Amino acid sequence: MAAIVTLTTDFGTQDAFVGTMKGVILARCPDVQLVDLTHEIPPQAIRTGALRLASAAPYFPAGTVHFAVVDPGVGGLRRPIAIEARNQRFVGPDNGVLSLAVSASDAGWRAVELRSPEHRLEPVSNTFHGRDIFAPAAAHLASGGALEDLGPAVSSIVQLALPLPKRRGSVVRGAVLDIDRFGNLITNVRSGDLAGRVVERVCVGDLQVDGLSAAYDPSRAGVAVMDSDDRLEIAVPGGNAAAQYGVRLDDPVEVGLRPAR
Amino acid sequence: MAAIVTLTTDFGTQDAFVGTMKGVILARCPDVQLVDLTHEIPPQAIRTGALRLASAAPYFPAGTVHFAVVDPGVGGLRRPIAIEARNQRFVGPDNGVLSLAVSASDAGWRAVELRSPEHRLEPVSNTFHGRDIFAPAAAHLASGGALEDLGPAVSSIVQLALPLPKRRGSVVRGAVLDIDRFGNLITNVRSGDLAGRVVERVCVGDLQVDGLSAAYDPSRAGVAVMDSDDRLEIAVPGGNAAAQYGVRLDDPVEVGLRPAR
Amino acid sequence: MAAIVTLTTDFGTQDAFVGTMKGVILARCPDVQLVDLTHEIPPQAIRTGALRLASAAPYFPAGTVHFAVVDPGVGGLRRPIAIEARNQRFVGPDNGVLSLAVSASDAGWRAVELRSPEHRLEPVSNTFHGRDIFAPAAAHLASGGALEDLGPAVSSIVQLALPLPKRRGSVVRGAVLDIDRFGNLITNVRSGDLAGRVVERVCVGDLQVDGLSAAYDPSRAGVAVMDSDDRLEIAVPGGNAAAQYGVRLDDPVEVGLRPAR
Repeated sequence: MAAIVTLTTDFGTQDAFVGTMKGVILARCPDVQLVDLTHEIPPQAIRTGALRLASAAPYFPAGTVHFAVVDPGVGGLRRPIAIEARNQRFVGPDNGVLSLAVSASDAGWRAVELRSPEHRLEPVSNTFHGRDIFAPAAAHLASGGALEDLGPAVSSIVQLALPLPKRRGSVVRGAVLDIDRFGNLITNVRSGDLAGRVVERVCVGDLQVDGLSAAYDPSRAGVAVMDSDDRLEIAVPGGNAAAQYGVRLDDPVEVGLRPAR
Repeated sequence: MAAIVTLTTDFGTQDAFVGTMKGVILARCPDVQLVDLTHEIPPQAIRTGALRLASAAPYFPAGTVHFAVVDPGVGGLRRPIAIEARNQRFVGPDNGVLSLAVSASDAGWRAVELRSPEHRLEPVSNTFHGRDIFAPAAAHLASGGALEDLGPAVSSIVQLALPLPKRRGSVVRGAVLDIDRFGNLITNVRSGDLAGRVVERVCVGDLQVDGLSAAYDPSRAGVAVMDSDDRLEIAVPGGNAAAQYGVRLDDPVEVGLRPAR
Repeated sequence: MAAIVTLTTDFGTQDAFVGTMKGVILARCPDVQLVDLTHEIPPQAIRTGALRLASAAPYFPAGTVHFAVVDPGVGGLRRPIAIEARNQRFVGPDNGVLSLAVSASDAGWRAVELRSPEHRLEPVSNTFHGRDIFAPAAAHLASGGALEDLGPAVSSIVQLALPLPKRRGSVVRGAVLDIDRFGNLITNVRSGDLAGRVVERVCVGDLQVDGLSAAYDPSRAGVAVMDSDDRLEIAVPGGNAAAQYGVRLDDPVEVGLRPAR
């Protein structure tokens, strides 16, 4: 059965970068199942890449190899790494892009630095480690190779810190973490942050929404829902909340609560 | 041999939505052959999704499963369905998006409502039925599972009505149904609508074209051709008819005919 | 083991064109491994398509079939061809789009014109040879079929001429050949053009860069590097050189050299 390799990058799809990396993987692991998560991470937006990977990875089967390259430091000092955690493997730069899928609190993760010359395209370029370092490593793992073959163990990895929502009395203050294709605003507020209370009002910029809806109710000008990743999300059904209200990443979100009756 | 699952959505490729659904399919049907038709259907444009699927589906082999999710009513009352027709299967919301590929006039189609808890990700979210309902159903069918396993039979489905061209004497009045990447204008006029006459002139907005060309003749400022789906198409060779003439979906098209000599 | 077919087109991903061609290939060669190089070649930009294909093809294994359709002359007089070279095969229009991957100087290449009715979808449309001529040919080759089955041999193919850099004394004058997703400027200057000297200064439009860097040094407002394809590339680390400096394809580039000490 073919191993799965998912790919997440900020390389876009207009150039030959992604195809070239797939060629490198296929030359070493011909019956791999390649799955693009997305190549439209905004250039060098590590946190967005980390969020997208963390959102999709749990839905893939054990044994999947996740390749994630959002790498503003290519050619610099950050380490290239591979991680084994939750029965999956992860390959990418040690800049945090893998860290939301592989929480530091996971029991039993192991990581190595990608240093083995056998599992690189030599000479390694300074500008395209996706092709020369990460793709051969992903192919090795997808072929069933051992993590330890790729290089020496590392004992810690760079961990992104997401902003956490803060509750004071009946108000939770959070932030917009991500904006999706539909302009929906994905926040850092999760159901556990609501302290068992009921959402009365959600405000972001000039957009104010009453209560929490079960779905994207098309009769309303704005809705707040707990989305499919258990995140509070603000949407304009049939519209685009981000564009219509000029909302951007990291904008503050305020959630007014009242006691559940 | 791997089953094929095609995917047509308005989810775009910037988020992890499509990758997540592929993970769900692969976890249940590891050797599937996944083919993206397109994920760039304009948000919630059911008719465009239906046209694209209807255009591509006949070129896929028997046994192919087509997954099409353009679903403004997610979480609402529309039914999730699967259809078997023409030796292929179709999975999506019952809002018309499948209906142009599966004509109501096809003999012998069968459809079911997707209700089986076994073939869902529980708990089903209200905002991402692509992941929780449609992907597991597609995986079941791609694995060779029976349509009937997915839920009870339904006796009718929502059928989109495309506008039909009208001929009065030597003039056919039609409309722009679709605009492709090159800005070419795809109309609802088919060769059967020309009543055996010869095209003298085609007008849409300020663009007027003489006669019907065999191909995109680069020496001409505008051409009309019968395209590869047997639709009258208006193009500006080397240019972009839609952008240059400000043409939009549903704009009227007028075809002047003369008797064939 | 599945054969690989790569696809390079200017069809975009919003329409069903690419999916339709994949259906045609899969119907004839079910266990093929399909890899999109890119479908975002600017409409009818043959040279850009040729560059992207030439950049990726060497990383694919022997036996790979490369399908490249950037075809402003569809339906006109240019010949549809297939080429065997470097243990790979290439399918596309004879307008130069294949010619940078298959250099005329390669020993032992063979080419045929695609004329065999058996390996076409009949009737062949005038507007979609990708579906009707090129996809069936690629499927035949991916299934292990012989090149000669597809039609009669052709003895020469259309060869694109890239502009060559010119050195006069300590100055090399080149041009911008390509602009990537990050706005990096890829030039026609290769390390062999520097005559063993050291780069002192690189200028393109209003952007002037001192010396050659090993990587995209984020502390600098502009860098010049020899990139992963051995091309001199000008970049604004963390920015977008093309957009910030208004640089376009074919703009002149000047490289000042000094003797290596």
